[in-house]
Amino acid sequence: VEASEELGLLQSAKVIFICTPIGLIVPTVANLVPLLSPATVLTDVGSVKGPIVEAASELWPNFIGGHPMAGTAESGIAAAQFKLFAHRPYVLTPTVNTSVDTIETLRSLVHSLDANLYHCDPMQHDQAVAWISHLPVMVSASLITACTAEADPAILTLAQQLASSGFRDTSRVGGGNPELGLMMAQHNQSALLRSLYTYRDQLNTFIQCIEQENWYDLEAYLKHTQGDRPYFLNSEF
Amino acid sequence: VEASEELGLLQSAKVIFICTPIGLIVPTVANLVPLLSPATVLTDVGSVKGPIVEAASELWPNFIGGHPMAGTAESGIAAAQFKLFAHRPYVLTPTVNTSVDTIETLRSLVHSLDANLYHCDPMQHDQAVAWISHLPVMVSASLITACTAEADPAILTLAQQLASSGFRDTSRVGGGNPELGLMMAQHNQSALLRSLYTYRDQLNTFIQCIEQENWYDLEAYLKHTQGDRPYFLNSEF
Repeated sequence: VEASEELGLLQSAKVIFICTPIGLIVPTVANLVPLLSPATVLTDVGSVKGPIVEAASELWPNFIGGHPMAGTAESGIAAAQFKLFAHRPYVLTPTVNTSVDTIETLRSLVHSLDANLYHCDPMQHDQAVAWISHLPVMVSASLITACTAEADPAILTLAQQLASSGFRDTSRVGGGNPELGLMMAQHNQSALLRSLYTYRDQLNTFIQCIEQENWYDLEAYLKHTQGDRPYFLNSEF
Repeated sequence: VEASEELGLLQSAKVIFICTPIGLIVPTVANLVPLLSPATVLTDVGSVKGPIVEAASELWPNFIGGHPMAGTAESGIAAAQFKLFAHRPYVLTPTVNTSVDTIETLRSLVHSLDANLYHCDPMQHDQAVAWISHLPVMVSASLITACTAEADPAILTLAQQLASSGFRDTSRVGGGNPELGLMMAQHNQSALLRSLYTYRDQLNTFIQCIEQENWYDLEAYLKHTQGDRPYFLNSEF
């Protein structure tokens, strides 16, 4: 294993992983293109795939989008972890134009990491992560801004004193890194908005049940959420 | 310590804790009144206080509302835990008509449990728990119904496979006991609706930022949520 900042060494690379922030992936591909051998496979690790795969594939036909869903809040080489990707999802998003060789190269690398490999269309990936990762951030952040909007200082203080595990868990991702939340919204805007519109409709359904004292339907919805949640909980968590 | 189902024994009781479901607290007070000595203090452990305190105090002047915020998902005598209430909030909600003796009796009992005692108005209590306990349930349940409303089965399956700790935590209280969620809505309807209306406004603010690509404001809101969340996290959690 060698590390270097010498870009000329890339000419002998079989596979190159681009691990920049989302907004720099496509510009980085553009910068690398003049330095690569024709057979080199390019891939990225960004959490949004649609626009990146489209632009990067035009610049380099052997590009394949990837999204390894592992990692910690830490960054830098000191945060490296043995087996970081083991038993965690690794999504590849080939298109109709991705060659079988390119797919096979990444597939074997992902298997060597012991990661759980998934294949899907870039747009399907983006909508799926909007549902389970990006929407929860906005839902959770709205909970925090709503609670802090309480105008009666005695009630606000009491709420802060009484908050326990329910508030802690529901507010966790909304109180996380603001740059990450911003990037999700900027780069996955349309899928996130689609999720947010459906979410707002569902919230209004709950509000209407409570306004109209439609306890029968409210209980039915809450039974469904209790029953449906386990399908989203895989054994790793 | 004696246990009995003989209600006549209540005549010698100094303090009686009513630990029924919320909807049965006031009817239970009504049933007990003919059996009590004039000085007996009645209290409850229900998670909503406004309507209960009002009705129970009319039936029995020595009634004081209480809400110990501890416990597990288990029930019955086998679920008893030593020091269950230690270092957990215990809210008392006296009114202007509650006698100093009644308050003092409960205060010393709560102190003997090593619980953290809070005093407040019944309506302030109900609004505070609406914010930090009842609102999160509806916010979280709406997340589950929104995700499961995805009409493309390939995206829904992928979302279920990729969901990890962010979804798990944000959906936890919404996937809990449906009877509890229903009771919160039925008995704390007005405070919960007030919280839900503010929440919907805040959600719309986030949606508008994303629709209008107002990234400056979106980042500012997310920085506020990151900064404000710790005020709701007391050291016990």
